[in-house]
Amino acid sequence: MIGSIGAAAAAICIIICTAALQVEAGGAEVKFKYEIKEFQVPLDHFSFLSNATFNIRYLYNDSFVDKKNAHTPIFFYTGNEGDIELFAQNTGFMWELAEKQRALLIFAEHRYYGKSLPFGASTFNASMPDHLAYFTVEQTLEDYAMLITFLRNDLPLPVVAFGGSYGGMLAAWFRMKYPHLVAGALAASAPILQFPGITDCDIFYRIVTSVFQNAYNSNCTTNIGRSWKTFETLGGTEAGKKQISDAFHLCNPIKNDADLKKFLDYIEEVYGNLAMVNYPYNSSFLAPLPAYPVRQVCFYLKDLHQNDADLLHAMASALAVYTNYTNSAKCLDISVNSNADDSGWNVQTCNQMVMPFCSNGTDTMFRPSNWNFKEFSDKCYKDYRLTPKPYDIILRYGGRNIETATNIIFSNGLLDPWSGGGVLQAPNNKVDIIILPEGAHHLDLRHSDPADPPSVRDARNKEASIIARWIQEFAY
Amino acid sequence: MIGSIGAAAAAICIIICTAALQVEAGGAEVKFKYEIKEFQVPLDHFSFLSNATFNIRYLYNDSFVDKKNAHTPIFFYTGNEGDIELFAQNTGFMWELAEKQRALLIFAEHRYYGKSLPFGASTFNASMPDHLAYFTVEQTLEDYAMLITFLRNDLPLPVVAFGGSYGGMLAAWFRMKYPHLVAGALAASAPILQFPGITDCDIFYRIVTSVFQNAYNSNCTTNIGRSWKTFETLGGTEAGKKQISDAFHLCNPIKNDADLKKFLDYIEEVYGNLAMVNYPYNSSFLAPLPAYPVRQVCFYLKDLHQNDADLLHAMASALAVYTNYTNSAKCLDISVNSNADDSGWNVQTCNQMVMPFCSNGTDTMFRPSNWNFKEFSDKCYKDYRLTPKPYDIILRYGGRNIETATNIIFSNGLLDPWSGGGVLQAPNNKVDIIILPEGAHHLDLRHSDPADPPSVRDARNKEASIIARWIQEFAY
Repeated sequence: MIGSIGAAAAAICIIICTAALQVEAGGAEVKFKYEIKEFQVPLDHFSFLSNATFNIRYLYNDSFVDKKNAHTPIFFYTGNEGDIELFAQNTGFMWELAEKQRALLIFAEHRYYGKSLPFGASTFNASMPDHLAYFTVEQTLEDYAMLITFLRNDLPLPVVAFGGSYGGMLAAWFRMKYPHLVAGALAASAPILQFPGITDCDIFYRIVTSVFQNAYNSNCTTNIGRSWKTFETLGGTEAGKKQISDAFHLCNPIKNDADLKKFLDYIEEVYGNLAMVNYPYNSSFLAPLPAYPVRQVCFYLKDLHQNDADLLHAMASALAVYTNYTNSAKCLDISVNSNADDSGWNVQTCNQMVMPFCSNGTDTMFRPSNWNFKEFSDKCYKDYRLTPKPYDIILRYGGRNIETATNIIFSNGLLDPWSGGGVLQAPNNKVDIIILPEGAHHLDLRHSDPADPPSVRDARNKEASIIARWIQEFAY
Repeated sequence: MIGSIGAAAAAICIIICTAALQVEAGGAEVKFKYEIKEFQVPLDHFSFLSNATFNIRYLYNDSFVDKKNAHTPIFFYTGNEGDIELFAQNTGFMWELAEKQRALLIFAEHRYYGKSLPFGASTFNASMPDHLAYFTVEQTLEDYAMLITFLRNDLPLPVVAFGGSYGGMLAAWFRMKYPHLVAGALAASAPILQFPGITDCDIFYRIVTSVFQNAYNSNCTTNIGRSWKTFETLGGTEAGKKQISDAFHLCNPIKNDADLKKFLDYIEEVYGNLAMVNYPYNSSFLAPLPAYPVRQVCFYLKDLHQNDADLLHAMASALAVYTNYTNSAKCLDISVNSNADDSGWNVQTCNQMVMPFCSNGTDTMFRPSNWNFKEFSDKCYKDYRLTPKPYDIILRYGGRNIETATNIIFSNGLLDPWSGGGVLQAPNNKVDIIILPEGAHHLDLRHSDPADPPSVRDARNKEASIIARWIQEFAY
């Protein structure tokens, strides 16, 4: 059924969901400065069909560099699904460590995101599906390999790759495939195991449920679990549709079943986002949020509600923590996920990044949903003329068989729903696993904050000392 | 100058040069039997431009397999530039070891060679240069990755990759990039360092010269060194052209400077081939040859010749060791290098396999020649509409920076001119280097023979025990 596909596609959005970019790009939180540069890359690294090229952007900051050091470390962020400036602003740990290590800072923008569009404004033009042909992990890693080679300029400079979430997957894979170019990689909250056949498809929703269950009291997940039925019951009548629309202050009231479905998909996605950014201090990565936002949400759901009207209003108050924390929105626009970057990730889920999601509906607070690859694939073909290759990633990067990997740190917060697809056990003693029991999605990559729990401070200290060792051991 | 390009292109032909295939495919030496199978692969593994597929061939022999063993080893030959049947017949060591290890034997044919042609008869059609677009190392390794995944069928079967020469390069790179699919690789005479900027371009000709110098007496290389002038002097007159043509029994007599150039390129290539297959017993890998053919050639050149006519006739006798050892040729046809497989390698030198060759003309017995990339690249564009990427291979496989490689044996014979681009020093203790002082081009991969020198027997014993360890250590 289409419902589960929608839900899966929504949850699959690793970082940049909903109105994220607008919030961040506003610049209110801009802390770090850099030059913006461009680098020319081949459109297709792996065939000789054409010599076409385009430019990717990268951010450059050499303010910490010791010009007398012939072996300046390069800290290289392997950009992921979004405008690279967003990641530069939300990866404070790299800036803090660059100061200590006197490193050159580089943030590379992922092809097909931000301003690194191979076909400019027509990149995502639905009538030109061939424009999407080179939007793959391997092409992206080659972009980074060429950029690093250019930046090193034949000098023996140790490079360390950094990345969070999908960016962390890229950092890990980059070290696996191009160990001659990077001395090591910090892969924060990188779910490289979230692929078909090697991780249970319900793990994400189970972790989200557990985070909500432990946030305030257990009525929270009971209420949310019941709410699906409430929404369905109310949604079955005209009056009920209006009741939901009013309670949530929807900019576009629910008029039909399709609208109702979109609304339900939206709030399902919000739960995942809340768990991901359940940071210990106010943040605005995905949306302006208070500290520990899941606790806030669950505070509004602390009482068990037996009737639909009560539950509806409690839900509306609870979700406003995410949708309108600043109290500045006049109404809730649930359709704001159609910017270019969101389009980008949807394409990637339709070529290689096939990450199955499902929920059995009894162990979790979510609606039951199956993973139906056929339906998913058909929709990909309809939307983009793409046939997903669900086993590409495992074929190339080994799935759970990563015994020969070296100099990678996999860090995972146990409160992060993506940790279910993360590497939690070291395949050998050259790979470090760092677990943050209180950590949400790549909390360790963020700037240090007085509200950081001890586990994230410990994690950053460990990461810093491992990275210092890689730099020292780099043979020059 | 075009001369040096011709020479470089000729010498660059790693294994299948001149009339090699005709001799081998005749079947006189067919020792090993197999089923011939086909496997469907995507034309382009790395883009989503089309879903086109084609079939590659592979050879299959399960006669040694212990059907009761749930962990049957697979010995997988990573096919190189030629019909895969040729390699199956000339890789006796794999067959001998498969019997001991009770392994399944697979020989995979390289795309664009033999009968694994993506566009059938029009694959190399000059008017369809786009047909050559997917003829790369990476596409080929992906073919092998998919075939191995299919053959393992989700069973925990240890796979060992084997390859000689360019096939050895593929085996080594395959282990580096797909360590989750192969437990280890035997890379015999694999010049993975024969690329721009990391190995001197004159190393090949210097080693060939050294082999000829030490084969009988030093007059051999002095005569050959002088012969270029003799050919040029004689070639300057009509009578002299006839004299050369008669002495060498050329099927098509030399009529102009272009013919003379072709003839000189041909014999230059023959010297390289002779050094490569300077095996201790009669063989017919590149041509029917006696044991230690370089010694035989140099026997005919043991006396120093001062005048052109004497030298010409000595040269003709000497080279007949290679061109007509069986005494069955009525005349010498120097144009027999236009079969599909030879075309194949020429294409690869024009996309990724850019291996510079040169000679300073004083340290070697060869004509002086420069490596001129611009001219080479222009010729590639003229011939195939291809612009070579000389740094592709180093960018992807690391050049000399292979510190993280594991479970690879690099074996090299010091009498092999390709050893100059081989890995002769271990980057770490998980890579084994085996040197065969008396070895020619991947002698160790051939069947054992009573005439084998002790070093090749030792090499095979070492290789067998290392491979046995990989299989034992394979985690299942």
